[in-house]
Amino acid sequence: MTSLPSPGPTVDSPVPAGDGVPDSGTALAVLGMAAYGELAEFTRLAADSDHAPTLAGRLAVSRLARIARERLDLIAARIEELGGELEATMAPFAGVLVEFDERTEPSTWWERLVKGYVGYGVSDDFARTLAQGLDERTREVMLEVLADDGHAALVIDAIAEEAVNDPTLSARSALWGRRLFGEALAVVQGVIVDHPEIQRLLEGVVGEEGAQQTLFARLTAEHSRRMDRLGLAA
Amino acid sequence: MTSLPSPGPTVDSPVPAGDGVPDSGTALAVLGMAAYGELAEFTRLAADSDHAPTLAGRLAVSRLARIARERLDLIAARIEELGGELEATMAPFAGVLVEFDERTEPSTWWERLVKGYVGYGVSDDFARTLAQGLDERTREVMLEVLADDGHAALVIDAIAEEAVNDPTLSARSALWGRRLFGEALAVVQGVIVDHPEIQRLLEGVVGEEGAQQTLFARLTAEHSRRMDRLGLAA
Repeated sequence: MTSLPSPGPTVDSPVPAGDGVPDSGTALAVLGMAAYGELAEFTRLAADSDHAPTLAGRLAVSRLARIARERLDLIAARIEELGGELEATMAPFAGVLVEFDERTEPSTWWERLVKGYVGYGVSDDFARTLAQGLDERTREVMLEVLADDGHAALVIDAIAEEAVNDPTLSARSALWGRRLFGEALAVVQGVIVDHPEIQRLLEGVVGEEGAQQTLFARLTAEHSRRMDRLGLAA
Repeated sequence: MTSLPSPGPTVDSPVPAGDGVPDSGTALAVLGMAAYGELAEFTRLAADSDHAPTLAGRLAVSRLARIARERLDLIAARIEELGGELEATMAPFAGVLVEFDERTEPSTWWERLVKGYVGYGVSDDFARTLAQGLDERTREVMLEVLADDGHAALVIDAIAEEAVNDPTLSARSALWGRRLFGEALAVVQGVIVDHPEIQRLLEGVVGEEGAQQTLFARLTAEHSRRMDRLGLAA
């Protein structure tokens, strides 16, 4: 990370197709990362659903797990279109969340819910940023699999319900949210450091100077917005 | 269970619609049992996928979990058509597999796979038998959710692969299969005893005399066929 602030190009407009579009190897790296992310999300949500305090909660969370697994298939189809092989494309990202999971073991149902909400929120924002620099079809697939699946609404309702019985929940959730966010940024940083093609793609999207700072500023802003939706300070 | 053998009606032909079709309360009971079965299968397969020794295995087993969760939605739609409420309809079956799971904790990957194959095999055969006595539309939904999802093929391949490295696997798998089958029959018996509407439905399908014996003979025959497909003696 450099210490210079980076104005960069306007980050919300996609890089135009043509010379600026990276090769399919870069698209495959992002798709592999996203595929592994969906598999991890599936596994996490399925385990969460088994811890839900009510049958309604179990049904709602297992439905989100099903959606994550369906999205993995959409990503797999695009990987195949680009001539990639799913397992080989996912493999470089297979260990990426192990440390994150070890360092953020939830101890209650709401901690579980917030973990998914914050953790996948950060990884989705990162993926959304990278998608801006990809070819049109891959970008479409990425935006489709990153669309709202109802996860946020479910967490918001559960936290609101829980807060009625627990006046200290708000403060503790805010603390938990900050810790998760810090750990999630460390995962993003690790991915950028370990994958030069993703680093280059990011620089193409947000500008070469201080690319990681620009990204982190964006992720922080989105995290604050997300915590606001929960009624919590980031 | 009576001690008389029961010839019963021809069990492979569905009970004709009309006076023989039970009320929707009975259909809802079977649908509730099946919905809970799919949720349990989803949870089990999702946990199994996290224990898979390879990424390919993880992808294949998580795909089966996704299918189970999709099937739950098909059942839920039929429950709604019949004027039922999903959670209330599932609730009476919510504890049915807890003891089975405690008594059959798998210690290896192939034990996990065989557990799913044998356990869900028995419960699917039971549900298939009951479906014969239901109204046409519910029977169609049941047969759709009970159709082959590729589970058997996956287990067969994994066991064949494992057997190459482990000459005692065949004998141990057969033993494990028998134990699982015995425990699965105990679950079926518990469901029949606890749910008089399911007992009556079963009697309508296989005949009143020795209904449970007739059912168990059928389940045993199907179990043998299933173990044969694995290359194992039942």
